[in-house]
Amino acid sequence: MTTLADKALLPTGLEDLVPPRAEIEGRAVEAAVGFVAANGYRRIKPPLIEFEETLLGGPGAATGPATFRVMDPLSQRMMGLRADMTIQAARIAATRLNGEPRPLRLAYAGQVLRVKGTQLRPRRQFTQAGIELIGTDTPAADAEVIMLAAGALEHLGIGGVSVDLSLPTLVPAVCRGLGLDDATTESLILALDHKDAGTVAALAGPHGALLGGLMEALGPAERAVAALAGLDLPAEAATLRDRLLAVLDCLNAQDPTLRLTVDPTESRGFEYHSGVAFTVFADGGRGELARGGRYRATLEPPAPLGIPATSGEPATGMTLSMDAITELLPEPPARPRVLVPAATDPALRRRLHGQGFVTLGALDGAADLKAEARRLGCDHVLEGDHPVAL
Amino acid sequence: MTTLADKALLPTGLEDLVPPRAEIEGRAVEAAVGFVAANGYRRIKPPLIEFEETLLGGPGAATGPATFRVMDPLSQRMMGLRADMTIQAARIAATRLNGEPRPLRLAYAGQVLRVKGTQLRPRRQFTQAGIELIGTDTPAADAEVIMLAAGALEHLGIGGVSVDLSLPTLVPAVCRGLGLDDATTESLILALDHKDAGTVAALAGPHGALLGGLMEALGPAERAVAALAGLDLPAEAATLRDRLLAVLDCLNAQDPTLRLTVDPTESRGFEYHSGVAFTVFADGGRGELARGGRYRATLEPPAPLGIPATSGEPATGMTLSMDAITELLPEPPARPRVLVPAATDPALRRRLHGQGFVTLGALDGAADLKAEARRLGCDHVLEGDHPVAL
Repeated sequence: MTTLADKALLPTGLEDLVPPRAEIEGRAVEAAVGFVAANGYRRIKPPLIEFEETLLGGPGAATGPATFRVMDPLSQRMMGLRADMTIQAARIAATRLNGEPRPLRLAYAGQVLRVKGTQLRPRRQFTQAGIELIGTDTPAADAEVIMLAAGALEHLGIGGVSVDLSLPTLVPAVCRGLGLDDATTESLILALDHKDAGTVAALAGPHGALLGGLMEALGPAERAVAALAGLDLPAEAATLRDRLLAVLDCLNAQDPTLRLTVDPTESRGFEYHSGVAFTVFADGGRGELARGGRYRATLEPPAPLGIPATSGEPATGMTLSMDAITELLPEPPARPRVLVPAATDPALRRRLHGQGFVTLGALDGAADLKAEARRLGCDHVLEGDHPVAL
Repeated sequence: MTTLADKALLPTGLEDLVPPRAEIEGRAVEAAVGFVAANGYRRIKPPLIEFEETLLGGPGAATGPATFRVMDPLSQRMMGLRADMTIQAARIAATRLNGEPRPLRLAYAGQVLRVKGTQLRPRRQFTQAGIELIGTDTPAADAEVIMLAAGALEHLGIGGVSVDLSLPTLVPAVCRGLGLDDATTESLILALDHKDAGTVAALAGPHGALLGGLMEALGPAERAVAALAGLDLPAEAATLRDRLLAVLDCLNAQDPTLRLTVDPTESRGFEYHSGVAFTVFADGGRGELARGGRYRATLEPPAPLGIPATSGEPATGMTLSMDAITELLPEPPARPRVLVPAATDPALRRRLHGQGFVTLGALDGAADLKAEARRLGCDHVLEGDHPVAL
């Protein structure tokens, strides 16, 4: 026989939320979805599981190694348990909703699973809430999604929000423009992600000044913009840089108080992004609270080494990490709890709910109703039709 | 290359909800959880996936054949994708929440998956919202859960609710009391489920009158109660019958208008229930909208042929079939939609949201804002700070 402790054991990276955390998360998800709905994003709900072929196409390819697979006994085809909902939104946009006017604004919330966590974040089930903005490729679209990521956090009561912008395909574009080979490009991407100036200089050779300049064009947006604007980039890279500058202009025009930083060569965690990408943090938040960016809503396989996809529609989107967000949110104010006789009429209970009370039925025929109320964490008992404080 | 139609294809029994269905479902789930929260049920959130051993213990054993399994690469143990959340609530009650006062009232909402649907219901992913009332074995507890199942539907705006009560372990108890063998008992359970009077009479032999009487003690509660009360049942069966009559008394005392029917020998679909069980229907609803009943919150394997489990705590609960319920709910009233310039200040947007508007940013620099608004399904455009109807 297994012990009680064994029975409580969940697989690493999976957890039970108990009161009040589950309620806090549930409310936060609905509040986030409500906020983006007010901004025109309509909710979709894809299934937890679908054919591997559709789940891992296009931007989904990046999640392949993280995806649990099961055999479908009906079709004998392999299915995947989603590790990300972005690809599902892209699929729905391209199929069921392909007749809707563009830009198409979609929202979703749900659970995703990953085969393994990381050492830093062992979690394997995540609560995602997010949006996708599909069929438009303007700086204003990039800015809208970033504003909504920051705005959703503020709507949930989280202060001290800051957004870090990057261009994960900038370094490959620079290297292509400079005629560097693939091996050098890969090494440079890695060295720039690690801000390893020595290796960057050694790899870049005659282009050391340019790549070193790129690496140093980071920090608060104003400072980074000045440095970036002065760099003499190859054409494709210059276009990416100019887009970033245009997005920063849009953000400043809408909300000059939004805290923005830039790290143009950062590419870690952006597997399928092809334009301006971003992560959102907050003071006191452990790690990132949201991330997103521009990509192509295609179901075709991705091109290697940051060559922009050309199939599918231009798209951008963001996902809120509701697990990390929930950890920052306070417990909702406790509602008064009133113990009522089991036979209390539902209409009277509804009236009490309307007055803000939680009603608990006294089920076990306790002789002393007040003692029973205290035992159950109630602060009132019903006398006649009225709650009386203990 | 696969066609667009192939890419839209989901496995049988899985579906995408698109606007407005996903929003209707999301709102309904939150409303249901809010309703039971007002009645003292606090939310928990177990993981989608856990070890087979805990997921399929106790009442979970019945869902074994319906459960998708995956290997956990970290522990090399098998995990199951939940097909029901009741067992998870029972596990949490017995472990993490074993120090909380009883009765323990828990609520949950989430997705469950089944390996196969039925011919009648091909669906394989379900949205469950439900409650468990753990640690009490009184008629008032049975009645509370039934009242909340009916009450949740009414709270969601569903009229014409009726509850059908049954005693899935009654026939085995009668047969044990009469000394019938296991094979005869199994055949009788089947024959009674099919209301096959000829087979019942043939199998029951000298007890034909009693079993025939049981089979006919069904229909509107008042009529069934009179018939049931008059039957001369063996002791264990009489105790079950008396509990049903006591629960009906509680329900009548609380809400004499609730439509109640009784079918005491019905056992289909109640795999682990050990006392009063029920299904809830509504006029116009296709099939059942909720079901539940009494069981033992144990993680030990179930006893054969309806012998009541003795381990674990007494419990009762109910689950709302949110998919079936969502199909009955109307679309929420459309909110006015206003097209606003992309650079509109977030504070102004918030003010418009507060006035009931959905705001859509004009992203693509359309020359004719009004034509663009119409194309995007807006009925207003922003002029200065004010929405103007088209």
